[in-house]
Amino acid sequence: MLPALRDRYAELQARGLRLDLTRGKPSAEQLDLAEPMLSLPGVGVHTDADGVDVRNYGGLDGLPQLRRIFAELLDVPVEQLLALGNASLTLMHDAVAYAFLWGVPGSERPWGREEKVRFVCPVPGYDRHFAVCEAFGIEMVTVPMTPDGPDVEAVAALVADDPTVKGLWVVPTYANPDGAVVSEAVARRLVSMPAAAPDFRIFWDNAYAIHHLTENETKTANAIDLAAEAGNPDRVLMFASTSKVSFAGAGVAFFASSPANVAWYKKHLSVQSIGPDKVNQLRHALFFGTADGVREHMRKHRQILAPKFAAVTRILAERLGDLGVASWTDPQGGYFVSLDVEPGTAARVVQLAKEAGIALTPAGATFPYGQDPEDRNIRLAPSMPPLAEVEVAMDGVATCVLLAAAEKAAHATTP
Amino acid sequence: MLPALRDRYAELQARGLRLDLTRGKPSAEQLDLAEPMLSLPGVGVHTDADGVDVRNYGGLDGLPQLRRIFAELLDVPVEQLLALGNASLTLMHDAVAYAFLWGVPGSERPWGREEKVRFVCPVPGYDRHFAVCEAFGIEMVTVPMTPDGPDVEAVAALVADDPTVKGLWVVPTYANPDGAVVSEAVARRLVSMPAAAPDFRIFWDNAYAIHHLTENETKTANAIDLAAEAGNPDRVLMFASTSKVSFAGAGVAFFASSPANVAWYKKHLSVQSIGPDKVNQLRHALFFGTADGVREHMRKHRQILAPKFAAVTRILAERLGDLGVASWTDPQGGYFVSLDVEPGTAARVVQLAKEAGIALTPAGATFPYGQDPEDRNIRLAPSMPPLAEVEVAMDGVATCVLLAAAEKAAHATTP
Repeated sequence: MLPALRDRYAELQARGLRLDLTRGKPSAEQLDLAEPMLSLPGVGVHTDADGVDVRNYGGLDGLPQLRRIFAELLDVPVEQLLALGNASLTLMHDAVAYAFLWGVPGSERPWGREEKVRFVCPVPGYDRHFAVCEAFGIEMVTVPMTPDGPDVEAVAALVADDPTVKGLWVVPTYANPDGAVVSEAVARRLVSMPAAAPDFRIFWDNAYAIHHLTENETKTANAIDLAAEAGNPDRVLMFASTSKVSFAGAGVAFFASSPANVAWYKKHLSVQSIGPDKVNQLRHALFFGTADGVREHMRKHRQILAPKFAAVTRILAERLGDLGVASWTDPQGGYFVSLDVEPGTAARVVQLAKEAGIALTPAGATFPYGQDPEDRNIRLAPSMPPLAEVEVAMDGVATCVLLAAAEKAAHATTP
Repeated sequence: MLPALRDRYAELQARGLRLDLTRGKPSAEQLDLAEPMLSLPGVGVHTDADGVDVRNYGGLDGLPQLRRIFAELLDVPVEQLLALGNASLTLMHDAVAYAFLWGVPGSERPWGREEKVRFVCPVPGYDRHFAVCEAFGIEMVTVPMTPDGPDVEAVAALVADDPTVKGLWVVPTYANPDGAVVSEAVARRLVSMPAAAPDFRIFWDNAYAIHHLTENETKTANAIDLAAEAGNPDRVLMFASTSKVSFAGAGVAFFASSPANVAWYKKHLSVQSIGPDKVNQLRHALFFGTADGVREHMRKHRQILAPKFAAVTRILAERLGDLGVASWTDPQGGYFVSLDVEPGTAARVVQLAKEAGIALTPAGATFPYGQDPEDRNIRLAPSMPPLAEVEVAMDGVATCVLLAAAEKAAHATTP
């Protein structure tokens, strides 16, 4: 089998491909969906629904007209939702920075004055979450992901006993990379479990809240309400953005939480910011009009994305389905397929793919410090290339997975 | 004289004015100058001069096309200039935050781990600079402003002897509020003076670099080059923005410094940001085209602003000129007139004005912690109201200045 696979791999290399499945970037075709925004709000249109001149200073909370639309989509009261800059990553980073510099409501001292700060990181997870932790010297403690979200008993045990555990990352809807959706039961447990740290926070990164790949438009558990009901109103900090709704990098990011946390965030933000880009917020409000306008827009994204995801899982099933060398997710939304290959071969698969002109996310990227202890997880991001390229790339990836597995088997049986 | 002034003040109150000279906001007429931007870049225009799709992720440094324009205007190499978010305040805050969390090149430890951090604050100065210091617990040590910038001997003495002095705020061009322009000699001294702290930094807030009020378009001393020549290449962090060029809040902010400082800033920014809003940067590049396009645009601002500033100084001269109760600046650029009234009466003047329907910046705002030790400085911001309102407001302010001075004199002579 190894020689046959080597031949097939040689053929793959001979094609001189240049394909990229590395990052969850929208395709040009998706970006075209929002192209009319490039002429908005339009000459002469510079006041919002409340008569505010969006070209001038002011309005730290963001444009109410836009906040109303996304308050409905994110299922939070508009007073508890801020519409801010161009990236939720910045809001998450800054929330951690504010906590390190000044603490959060309930902190005994700034996190930067603690001897140690730990975050619980479900794995596989999002590399930029881990990068924030690494920058702040936060020790990352991993727990496994399940189809219903983080392994909640493992999380609860860590949080209950260890007052240095200050945070938990959660991507509640169509998680990066495994597509899991936090169930209502898991959400209830996460917001009600006892926490040794009085200032424990869940960083609820709702990046894919409305990014469905099927007609079943999953509604995320309302963690902010559930936390309030459970008597832990300040536990959840929610983040979201339009990066994969309108334009990546030219969208609007949102922060939602309890009234106390929103006041805390605004207190620190008011020193840092003269207010968000209200022109861009008006541009978004005018383009989408209503929450239903956003939902309709997301269905157009789905029409472009769903065939690419279907191709990924179809080709993986065709090439690897019966061989027991790999497993993968079948996400119902979001931007990723999580592929588990033979333990000890993920880095090799990525290397083989690279040498055949197929760029994959580095092996280990879905784990803290880039270290996958089993060297088996690979994040596939099929959104950016055209469908035909996704198909070619995935066929190539399957060859690499098989070759790496065969190499491993050969190595194991060779004295 | 007091009764006559009381009568005049009563007349003023009877007019039921609602005028606002509080903040340096551009007027609607100024914002109209950039109105065509509201339809830019335009449907179908989504690649920059280098062929990059500005609608997608990427490009932490900002759009080269826009950086080239502002590199010329700010007189820095384009490689040392980053085009970032919507506010230079955010960049200044974040530079301080990075320094507190991780230190700057040359730091022995993060500033947050120092027992004490002091900044030298020329006064009168900008309240938002002071607010940043206050938030971080930075002790502010004041030095007087002179027409050539901060009192450089006072600064040099503080910086030379005290290793806790880590920073100095400077608004080098048309300073807020007194309009001073840092001379070449002062700039040379600031960048070459010995510093006890190895990681001393000048926060060179070039907010009004191109905001001239006369035909004499003052060129700011190139502090970054001068610092390199003086053997202190990493001393200067420069900040600027288009907030008062295009739209306030929907503009582009810039960071410029030495290669080492730019690398430092980007290292931390790369954890915080997925890159700036490139669509907005392209919008700016297309609207202005070239550095000369920006200069031409600023002359249109000047035509709107200059008459308002002329009205302020004319009315102050007419009403207060020979009476020895006040002095004021005659700025050649920027957004403010600094008014010094009789010591001990600034707060009273602001109160009298408020009760006559004229909102002024709170007395003390131009000093750290809002405390003007002599209670004499008032910052006037005539940009926002129409010219006719500026004239009415300033006549009212003059009445308040006179009344407060007369009240003080009467109090002094009453047993």
